[in-house]
Amino acid sequence: MATIKDIASYCNVAVSTVSRVLNDHPDVSADTREKVLEAVRELRYVPNNSARDLALQQTDSIGLVVRGVENPFFMPIIRAIEKSCEEKGYTMVLHQITAGGDEVEEGARLVTSKRLKGLILLGGRYDYTREDASALGVPFVCCTSSNRFGDLDPSAFSSVSIDDAAEAYRAVKMLVDNGHTKIAVLLDSAHNRSVSERRFRGYCKALAEAGIPLDEALVCETVDFDMESVLEIIERLITDRSDITAIFSVYDTLAIAAMKAIANVGRSVPSDISIISIDGIAMSLCTTPTLTTLVQPQELIGEKAVEILVDVLDKAAPNSHVQLETTLRPGGTVGHVHSGDLA
Amino acid sequence: MATIKDIASYCNVAVSTVSRVLNDHPDVSADTREKVLEAVRELRYVPNNSARDLALQQTDSIGLVVRGVENPFFMPIIRAIEKSCEEKGYTMVLHQITAGGDEVEEGARLVTSKRLKGLILLGGRYDYTREDASALGVPFVCCTSSNRFGDLDPSAFSSVSIDDAAEAYRAVKMLVDNGHTKIAVLLDSAHNRSVSERRFRGYCKALAEAGIPLDEALVCETVDFDMESVLEIIERLITDRSDITAIFSVYDTLAIAAMKAIANVGRSVPSDISIISIDGIAMSLCTTPTLTTLVQPQELIGEKAVEILVDVLDKAAPNSHVQLETTLRPGGTVGHVHSGDLA
Repeated sequence: MATIKDIASYCNVAVSTVSRVLNDHPDVSADTREKVLEAVRELRYVPNNSARDLALQQTDSIGLVVRGVENPFFMPIIRAIEKSCEEKGYTMVLHQITAGGDEVEEGARLVTSKRLKGLILLGGRYDYTREDASALGVPFVCCTSSNRFGDLDPSAFSSVSIDDAAEAYRAVKMLVDNGHTKIAVLLDSAHNRSVSERRFRGYCKALAEAGIPLDEALVCETVDFDMESVLEIIERLITDRSDITAIFSVYDTLAIAAMKAIANVGRSVPSDISIISIDGIAMSLCTTPTLTTLVQPQELIGEKAVEILVDVLDKAAPNSHVQLETTLRPGGTVGHVHSGDLA
Repeated sequence: MATIKDIASYCNVAVSTVSRVLNDHPDVSADTREKVLEAVRELRYVPNNSARDLALQQTDSIGLVVRGVENPFFMPIIRAIEKSCEEKGYTMVLHQITAGGDEVEEGARLVTSKRLKGLILLGGRYDYTREDASALGVPFVCCTSSNRFGDLDPSAFSSVSIDDAAEAYRAVKMLVDNGHTKIAVLLDSAHNRSVSERRFRGYCKALAEAGIPLDEALVCETVDFDMESVLEIIERLITDRSDITAIFSVYDTLAIAAMKAIANVGRSVPSDISIISIDGIAMSLCTTPTLTTLVQPQELIGEKAVEILVDVLDKAAPNSHVQLETTLRPGGTVGHVHSGDLA
């Protein structure tokens, strides 16, 4: 494969000149630009970031550590991050770990082995400590997480997220406003120090505000099971507690599973049980009725994460924290409970 | 961070001895093993592949290029590939490209920039040429694809796949055996030289064998649109052609969309329209009725791909081609057409 040096010697110009042409810098004459681009074509040089980086002896790579390979919510975000990295002249190194993995440990390894300049952590914990930050050793952005459980000073990291607790509160309040009082919550875990726990707090707040006592039996934890097990867990919940009239699911995927579980036990959405959720994955458009959910701006989340990190890396900008809002997609899974039906 | 050399000098043993301990080789005395492992703990050495590779001045990385970031079918395969790579002492470098990307070009870049020893191409084209293979420059495995449209000698690459045409034939024959003759097919494209086209051929063969002429108006191409557009396309198909009694979808994702589209136009599955598909993604368990589909052995596909590639790399084994079979999950979306209903 032709290198940037081959192009330079072929054209009898400096490597830095070739680099300027390839990076569309304005300070190159039209003649030189044309000559270089012709050589690029003739020598079949691939002017990509990786080849350029090798030639210039620098990597300019950003690592993206994704915790939760199975989460379809992350897919449009990953795509947006990769696209934004390319636009800004960085290579994205993607590393996916399972939901049980430790993204700080894996991120630290990745930084060392791939000589990364910065990290984006997608789907990670919400409780990073100073030790975690120093283990990572490079600027990092918590993507979709605000790190609210950690003791880390906000100036030590950046984040792009929704306000999980506030959005969950908004979803559950919508159920309360529709007359529901027996509202179950579906989540990974109520105490996982992560998105599930943050959204669980919003659920608790909405109930408390409405004077509805928290019923632990309505808190349904699906942990990290496969789909068949998740369906069984939800079926058991709604069979055991036939007084449930609504479900708040912290993710769309669990909400889609809940709709199947409800159908399996012969009940209907929303006439028997209402469902509301948060995320807005593509598949949530395919349930019948369409899932009522608070849609996250997935692409914008990815773009903002890269923008913030590149500003920190290239312009020595201070860390920053961006909070984005969801958009309600009304769908058809939330119904009204008539006052006569109330317990 | 402590290096393997720090451990070696701390223990006063050779680097290769530390390496043998870290790799669980049997030819190390129990005393030495204990001493090394204690040093690993004390010096907080992270004995991961990447760190080890750096220390030994070799990368031992396998690239995984995934075309079609959005495809949930790939997720369990990616996880299985990463796990298998780790078990075999390789680091997996994952690079996801969009459905419109060119995995050969991107794979070639990745090989150069990350100094990869081999590649696994997931979701790629089925028509690699000799030029493609030489551009890649390292051993590669076509994962979920058999490269049936290419002119590449089978000895020049490996593959792990199902027989797409045969499995599609099997699915469509099941519809024919249930009395269906007006069978639509949902696919990306009938001529994309990839999985869609292979499965389309199976559809054509099953129709031909049953004496059913191919009706081009029943061939529904969804290309690479977003979910809302896909729903519209399918709704238009079943509205325009009310004589359709069955749909063969080449993927579960399209089948799930079809079930929504059918509901949107006020028809029922399977009483009005039957659906069968191929893949077996987790979400296909959540439709009502449960989707009838031919389930691919996703984890086994990933494991086999790594096994074959590592044999080629480590043992100079010849390339090989593994064909795996699907398993029918009966579900509830295929119904019978009574002879009186036939056109």
